[in-house]
Amino acid sequence: MRVLWRGKVTNLKTVWFEGRSVKMIDQRLLPDILQIHRADSVEKVARAIENMTVRGAPAIGATAAYGLALAQIKGEDIKKSCDRLKRTRPTGHDLFYALDLMMGSWRSGEDLVKTSRTYAAGLESSCLSIGKHGARLIKNGTRVLTHCNAGALATVDYGTAIAPLRVAHSRKKRFFVFVDETRPRMQGALLTAWERLQEGIDHAIIADSAAGYYFSKGEIDLVIVGADRIAANGDTANKIGTYTKAVLAAENGVPFYVAAPLSTIDFAAASGKDIPIEERDEEEVLSFHGVRVAPKGSKALNPAFDVTPAKYITGIITEKGIVSPHDIRKLRQVNRQ
Amino acid sequence: MRVLWRGKVTNLKTVWFEGRSVKMIDQRLLPDILQIHRADSVEKVARAIENMTVRGAPAIGATAAYGLALAQIKGEDIKKSCDRLKRTRPTGHDLFYALDLMMGSWRSGEDLVKTSRTYAAGLESSCLSIGKHGARLIKNGTRVLTHCNAGALATVDYGTAIAPLRVAHSRKKRFFVFVDETRPRMQGALLTAWERLQEGIDHAIIADSAAGYYFSKGEIDLVIVGADRIAANGDTANKIGTYTKAVLAAENGVPFYVAAPLSTIDFAAASGKDIPIEERDEEEVLSFHGVRVAPKGSKALNPAFDVTPAKYITGIITEKGIVSPHDIRKLRQVNRQ
Repeated sequence: MRVLWRGKVTNLKTVWFEGRSVKMIDQRLLPDILQIHRADSVEKVARAIENMTVRGAPAIGATAAYGLALAQIKGEDIKKSCDRLKRTRPTGHDLFYALDLMMGSWRSGEDLVKTSRTYAAGLESSCLSIGKHGARLIKNGTRVLTHCNAGALATVDYGTAIAPLRVAHSRKKRFFVFVDETRPRMQGALLTAWERLQEGIDHAIIADSAAGYYFSKGEIDLVIVGADRIAANGDTANKIGTYTKAVLAAENGVPFYVAAPLSTIDFAAASGKDIPIEERDEEEVLSFHGVRVAPKGSKALNPAFDVTPAKYITGIITEKGIVSPHDIRKLRQVNRQ
Repeated sequence: MRVLWRGKVTNLKTVWFEGRSVKMIDQRLLPDILQIHRADSVEKVARAIENMTVRGAPAIGATAAYGLALAQIKGEDIKKSCDRLKRTRPTGHDLFYALDLMMGSWRSGEDLVKTSRTYAAGLESSCLSIGKHGARLIKNGTRVLTHCNAGALATVDYGTAIAPLRVAHSRKKRFFVFVDETRPRMQGALLTAWERLQEGIDHAIIADSAAGYYFSKGEIDLVIVGADRIAANGDTANKIGTYTKAVLAAENGVPFYVAAPLSTIDFAAASGKDIPIEERDEEEVLSFHGVRVAPKGSKALNPAFDVTPAKYITGIITEKGIVSPHDIRKLRQVNRQ
């Protein structure tokens, strides 16, 4: 992605392998500070995923792949390293997909640095394809709602839900983006808005609760969100609040699209019921960017994801094209080719 | 309401008239600091409403009534004072109801301090009645969702949506409350949670987006919210995000109740389309408690209320009982008695 870094316009990836370490944009510091975080051990890579230095299911997949490559270079135990990396976050599927692919490569005696770089490059290419397939949904004047961050920062580059916006923007389409701020961690306000500013895409941040108001007034034409895990029946886990937007979209006759690479699809999960939902620390809700926002003694509940049933999803935008959520199983064949 | 103040349990009102000033709990400082704000001029009362030192439609109505009483005592121009107070916040109806009632009293040559005290006492009594009528909805084990703050702090005492919980609690019912944090101003986390702690009612704060997750898992049995203005056809304006909760409740077969005194009903508004929606400063979304949560250059949209169409409302809990939103017009007669 093109960013202003150290005073000049630079093309940066979200995560990459360099020397004997995994490097990544430290997403905890954005938008105020653009700083590169360096993880030089598997444990440090795992912690960077856990504490959300890097986040977004596809980006986590690429980071984990690089993490296993690091294990090989450093002579760390590959199986234990894989297990450690798999224990970082439970909901997103790309993590497991990438690590299973890396383990297959390792068993075949391959160079894991090479495999991980191929994986990341493939993901980047998939995201660009998602952008090209999805761009046709965006016309001049389209008012798009996004949730959380499914942009370049959630992948290696281009993004998933955001890729169609970037491609449409490069094609000189003029449109408007409602950016859900996405409590509790504010990835929308902190990351998605920052990305849109870098690209010069017209947008406004709204409280998550305000989307319903714009739906009810007929001011949202299209919803595109990312995904953390898609079950074989099309049910989709994504950032908490996604289900709500899907219900609102259905109620107001607005098309609702999920954008994700095939690596996000878990063909072993028959439905959303098979997707584990991560519960994160209540402090994320009780505080706001370090400021306490609840009385002492109150507790909070903090599910990080929810499941949107396939019936609410108009289409899933993948690198192979836009498919109905009910046709997800057909992609299994595509994936094997 | 019973609160711990200056080291001892005290019974406080949200707003009252004392000496030659209007006194109120400063709701901007809660839950950290319980401090009384004193407004000794109509202009100061108006500003306290505008800057949300006092908020909640019924509490604003009582505050405005006291403000006009203050005008009389201080020899300020009554008509100008009334106009100034009416210009504070556009959406809530109690403000206009209370001031029209006060103006009628003034034209009849009455003592406005006495009228305002009668108005506030009547509101308190109405809220207690709302609590008694609504309490039957709450059984042992009921899991209730609330939005924003419609508790004692939004009225003079007892609350509207919260009054049934207080009455049920006093009847030894054991239930659980999901408290929507209610971005952007966090009245749920800051005020509703604080009230529940004072009373010892079991609760957890959730991000506004998380309610959908609990609906989808069948873990919410009942929604009760307050109202800022109810149109003659039952359409209800309330804090931004209320419409979303109503749609989620309908989609998941959960009863959705609005609790409000008759003073919140605007019989002159045929439907929700006649209710003006206040747009507040974008800084409320871009920052929180002085901490910036968006990149420089991003803008925000900040509608403070939305309208929930009557079709999503199971019932409206008033001091006269629980009525269907479609029967609102019948209450006009009750109101005149």
